[in-house]
Amino acid sequence: MKCLRPHPWIQLRQITLCFVGWCLASAICTAQGPNFVVIFCDDLGYGDLSCFGHPSIETPELDRMAQEGLRWLQFYSAAPVCTPSRAALMTGRLPLRSGMCSNKRRVLFPNSKGGLPASEVTLAEMLRDAGYRTGCVGKWHLGHLPEYLPTHHGFDSYFGIPYSNDMDRLAEAPRGMTSIFEPKSAYFNVPLMRDAQVVERPADQPSLTQRYTQEAIEFIKSSDEKPFFLYLAHSMPHVPLFRSEDFVGHSRRGLYGDVIEEIDWSVGQILETLRSTGKAQNTLVVFTSDNGPWLSQRHHGGSAGLLREGKGTTWEGGMREPTLMWWPGTIAGSQATSALGSTMDLMRTFAGLAEAELPDDRPLDSYDLEPVLRGESHGTRDRLFYYRAYELMAVRLGPWKLHYQEQGSYGTEPRKLTKCETPKLYHLEHDPSERYNIAKQHPDVIERIQLAVEAHRSDLVAAETLLDH
Amino acid sequence: MKCLRPHPWIQLRQITLCFVGWCLASAICTAQGPNFVVIFCDDLGYGDLSCFGHPSIETPELDRMAQEGLRWLQFYSAAPVCTPSRAALMTGRLPLRSGMCSNKRRVLFPNSKGGLPASEVTLAEMLRDAGYRTGCVGKWHLGHLPEYLPTHHGFDSYFGIPYSNDMDRLAEAPRGMTSIFEPKSAYFNVPLMRDAQVVERPADQPSLTQRYTQEAIEFIKSSDEKPFFLYLAHSMPHVPLFRSEDFVGHSRRGLYGDVIEEIDWSVGQILETLRSTGKAQNTLVVFTSDNGPWLSQRHHGGSAGLLREGKGTTWEGGMREPTLMWWPGTIAGSQATSALGSTMDLMRTFAGLAEAELPDDRPLDSYDLEPVLRGESHGTRDRLFYYRAYELMAVRLGPWKLHYQEQGSYGTEPRKLTKCETPKLYHLEHDPSERYNIAKQHPDVIERIQLAVEAHRSDLVAAETLLDH
Repeated sequence: MKCLRPHPWIQLRQITLCFVGWCLASAICTAQGPNFVVIFCDDLGYGDLSCFGHPSIETPELDRMAQEGLRWLQFYSAAPVCTPSRAALMTGRLPLRSGMCSNKRRVLFPNSKGGLPASEVTLAEMLRDAGYRTGCVGKWHLGHLPEYLPTHHGFDSYFGIPYSNDMDRLAEAPRGMTSIFEPKSAYFNVPLMRDAQVVERPADQPSLTQRYTQEAIEFIKSSDEKPFFLYLAHSMPHVPLFRSEDFVGHSRRGLYGDVIEEIDWSVGQILETLRSTGKAQNTLVVFTSDNGPWLSQRHHGGSAGLLREGKGTTWEGGMREPTLMWWPGTIAGSQATSALGSTMDLMRTFAGLAEAELPDDRPLDSYDLEPVLRGESHGTRDRLFYYRAYELMAVRLGPWKLHYQEQGSYGTEPRKLTKCETPKLYHLEHDPSERYNIAKQHPDVIERIQLAVEAHRSDLVAAETLLDH
Repeated sequence: MKCLRPHPWIQLRQITLCFVGWCLASAICTAQGPNFVVIFCDDLGYGDLSCFGHPSIETPELDRMAQEGLRWLQFYSAAPVCTPSRAALMTGRLPLRSGMCSNKRRVLFPNSKGGLPASEVTLAEMLRDAGYRTGCVGKWHLGHLPEYLPTHHGFDSYFGIPYSNDMDRLAEAPRGMTSIFEPKSAYFNVPLMRDAQVVERPADQPSLTQRYTQEAIEFIKSSDEKPFFLYLAHSMPHVPLFRSEDFVGHSRRGLYGDVIEEIDWSVGQILETLRSTGKAQNTLVVFTSDNGPWLSQRHHGGSAGLLREGKGTTWEGGMREPTLMWWPGTIAGSQATSALGSTMDLMRTFAGLAEAELPDDRPLDSYDLEPVLRGESHGTRDRLFYYRAYELMAVRLGPWKLHYQEQGSYGTEPRKLTKCETPKLYHLEHDPSERYNIAKQHPDVIERIQLAVEAHRSDLVAAETLLDH
């Protein structure tokens, strides 16, 4: 028998590969960060949960989550519409940095050719590199062509619809608002995908919330070897509204309330799964939404509570979200925080907790929220930039918000982008409904905000839009 | 020594008197009902407490009260302004039955000659007759002439101001809104009274909330022999806003928030006194307000949350109040109810609990809330009549509200009382912000409401106004 001893160089290479492999395996096995679950709603209003004051929607599971966790009173999405908001959540960067916004087309459509570019580093990629198992369930809306799907952006698995549930309306659907106000799944040729395959079309929408929930539960239950990141992005309560048979007539708030109460049930299922599998103490769960309520949908849209306006606008109702964070043993219960937070902050926060590497070759718009979660600090974020696509509409600095430009949304005035004759200043804590412009009384504040804008713009490179073709 | 034996008739009379006296004493000693504390705010908005969703007012004591008690999501005052609202609370009757409203003058003023007539039976009279000790602390506003004061309406004692804290403005006070927005006690010649005596004038307003609280605590502590009824009617947050030194800068919401947070502190003091004196298990505490927020006062007015409009109007924001009820051991904690309730219902509810006699010679507009408190029923009230003085503006039946007439308030449109061309119908549970008139789609509901109005009017005798002279 001939001895097949390899050449010494090959031996060395094998040893090196083994070493690298061992290092990688070791890194994976020793990843010690907590699990992350992000539950992301679609068009949920600031005022739509019991624990945020709604009088006819009952959300006992979210109320319990609030009671066991942290209620954020001033937590924001990064954009007032879907695609840019999700791009920012995934990248920790304002959407104009990735080209995921457009002054013409607000979001991606079924005929769009673009999507989140591969050059962006997503939450999922960052965490997968740090040894996490990653799963995406629900609405994606960052590109439906194969190269843009979640499985090309750091997720090990995907189950959901790739864009909004009111898209791809079929020619035979009723005209006007009837297909929205009296909806059927068959009116919308929305695909349901598993990884990169369409598994159902049109997606059976009434069962989506339940199927997403089931998928999420299975993902949690089967994640025992590695820490995990689960992104559960509900299709609801975006119109057309659907809920399962179990929730028909469940709410005093009508169809919209039924939908929220089914999401509430879903949250309860997720938290219960974490408890029953012994993972609760090691899992940070974030509940929030992509933008405010779609007010032009009448009874089918939600409520921003006392906040002004809703989806599509840069008034508070468009971007401040009802947000809860839960992590038994680490987050103290029954707390509310007035710290400023943004969905973009999850990037830096998760990186810190997971000891993952943040991309260091690009500017991020992300702040670390961990000290707020631990009750150790009021947080370091003191500013927010409210963009509508490429337009800087308003800026928040501390409690102050200065509006430079205005534009209504979905039928509200002003119809066109309108520069304020002189910027309008509101004190958001004294006047959360943005009623009383007090610019004249506070020229010093306006000057400070102007400096913040200059600092912000100094490193701002806007990418060309990827939404217009 | 001569025997002074009285005449047999005199003997009999003495025996009878003794017997009557014994009966009375016995009734007093055996009065077994719970204590009642009604904490009544002035112009507090539906959205002004943390537990009703406010993002920058912190009310930990009221939140705890909610957690230990019952949060009412649909509890109403009987009028959208002060005097009629208070008359209704005190009598269990719509204010037009007692003449305590006016189409000309909305409320009583320092130059008014009228007040709540002696013919009305108040909560205090009813409970005093049933053996209760009765105390009134705070703003009265049902007549400041001697015959109308609390001590002439069933209260054993009174300490407070007899009308609103912005009245009696002195000639030397700054003109326009300055005296409101930069207030000093010295601008308002408001008397502070003990029983029927003026003890301070102008009342030192910054210390009022603290002094009322102290008075209430002493009343509770000294009530050991009889059950008691304490009516604590805060002067705040009616403008001009005042708070004590301890609360200057206490709130992120500014002056208005400071004022609410001092009331919150006061509630904590009251409940703690009830606990520490062993009375908590035997005391029903009701927290509510006389009408919605005074929106025209800009930053100095509160917020109705997601409800439409505020004080002065019959939109929900004018009359739906953030209401809590607390009675450890009887009311289960952490509950919210969607039962309909009105301040007028306290009359029948307290009567039932105290085994007191309701006046039986007049119609009442009062429903028994006890089964709701005990969690045994969703309540029997299914309707509300929204009056603006003598004008029936709107009617609620179940979740439906039909507006017959409209009128804005304090500068909002329509300026004049305006009959709706066709009545406007809203579904308050589907559409709590009263945005979407769906009258056309529901003629059957309008017909049912019309029948309710006819039934209501069948026993309605309006008294002449007592506010106009």
